[in-house]
Amino acid sequence: MEKIAIDMNHFCLPWVQTILGTHLNDKPNFMALDWVTRVNYKPVMMGAGVNKGNASHDAIMDTGEFSINIPTVDMVGVTDYVGIVSGKKTDKSSLFRVFYGELKKAPLIEECPLRIEFRLVQTVDLPTNSFFIGEMINAYSEERFLTDGKPDVEKIRPFILTMPDNRFWALGNVVGHAWKDGAAFREDLKK
Amino acid sequence: MEKIAIDMNHFCLPWVQTILGTHLNDKPNFMALDWVTRVNYKPVMMGAGVNKGNASHDAIMDTGEFSINIPTVDMVGVTDYVGIVSGKKTDKSSLFRVFYGELKKAPLIEECPLRIEFRLVQTVDLPTNSFFIGEMINAYSEERFLTDGKPDVEKIRPFILTMPDNRFWALGNVVGHAWKDGAAFREDLKK
Repeated sequence: MEKIAIDMNHFCLPWVQTILGTHLNDKPNFMALDWVTRVNYKPVMMGAGVNKGNASHDAIMDTGEFSINIPTVDMVGVTDYVGIVSGKKTDKSSLFRVFYGELKKAPLIEECPLRIEFRLVQTVDLPTNSFFIGEMINAYSEERFLTDGKPDVEKIRPFILTMPDNRFWALGNVVGHAWKDGAAFREDLKK
Repeated sequence: MEKIAIDMNHFCLPWVQTILGTHLNDKPNFMALDWVTRVNYKPVMMGAGVNKGNASHDAIMDTGEFSINIPTVDMVGVTDYVGIVSGKKTDKSSLFRVFYGELKKAPLIEECPLRIEFRLVQTVDLPTNSFFIGEMINAYSEERFLTDGKPDVEKIRPFILTMPDNRFWALGNVVGHAWKDGAAFREDLKK
């Protein structure tokens, strides 16, 4: 089958949709964030790729704190809105009910089932973006989103962004079980 | 509603499931990779968080090249397998049909609908992991996975990992449209 080199901005990985929380001019500010991943096992660190032109970029540089909030499928509209409207022009501080954990410049979104506060530990300077690495200080949820004390993804109902089609997706069917299906595959290899 | 601080290893974001390709002892080697995101807009860069104990870690340090391959829902077993078996003990070079793009130490997986080759540009040294930042050299697909020349996520059929439940998920229903739902939300705000 012929391999086709595709446009490099069209590579179509699904990204978890989150909302980045920062303090801008001493007020809460929010931005849709898809370029995010865990980066370190212990201590728990995550990183966020933020364009240098975004207000959130300067806010993190300024305060050294940020939050990552996981919206539900019911929050698609407002999540997309905070991604298309700049904090430089629009005050987004009153869009959500906000609370704080240990950090006072990392606003946490009440409406989101999962909210994580981070202290910036390293800024990786890249050509158009900074990659902000934060140490997780606390992750907050509520009893109604937990099962046996652990976050339950079916109660949290996160969503996913794909490009270049620009669609948001709910999770669908369970197609396998990590650490089990691989063990079964290994047994099959031995036969 | 009371906010509960949850175990910091149980924060339950959905991660896109990929397979990291490297050259280990001059042979292809593969590892399940979930800690991955785009980090820079232009040039296109992505980053991968790899534990320092993994064979893939030393392979990237050694060659300065790697690949990221997107498996389909039909490849759950083998993808999980390359995540639970170490390249230090097991030769995983013949699990997939392999081809190469421009880079000769970034093996691309024939069975995956999307394969991306990266040249390492920066290694971020973290306590237990390195975060490898690579510049995308090429992304390869095939006509059968494209619609109008662009990768079509419904043809690619990627899958997602969630923890702490350790389940793999297909994408489900479309719940919204990026850059449109936010614009509609903005219009509603004006009313």
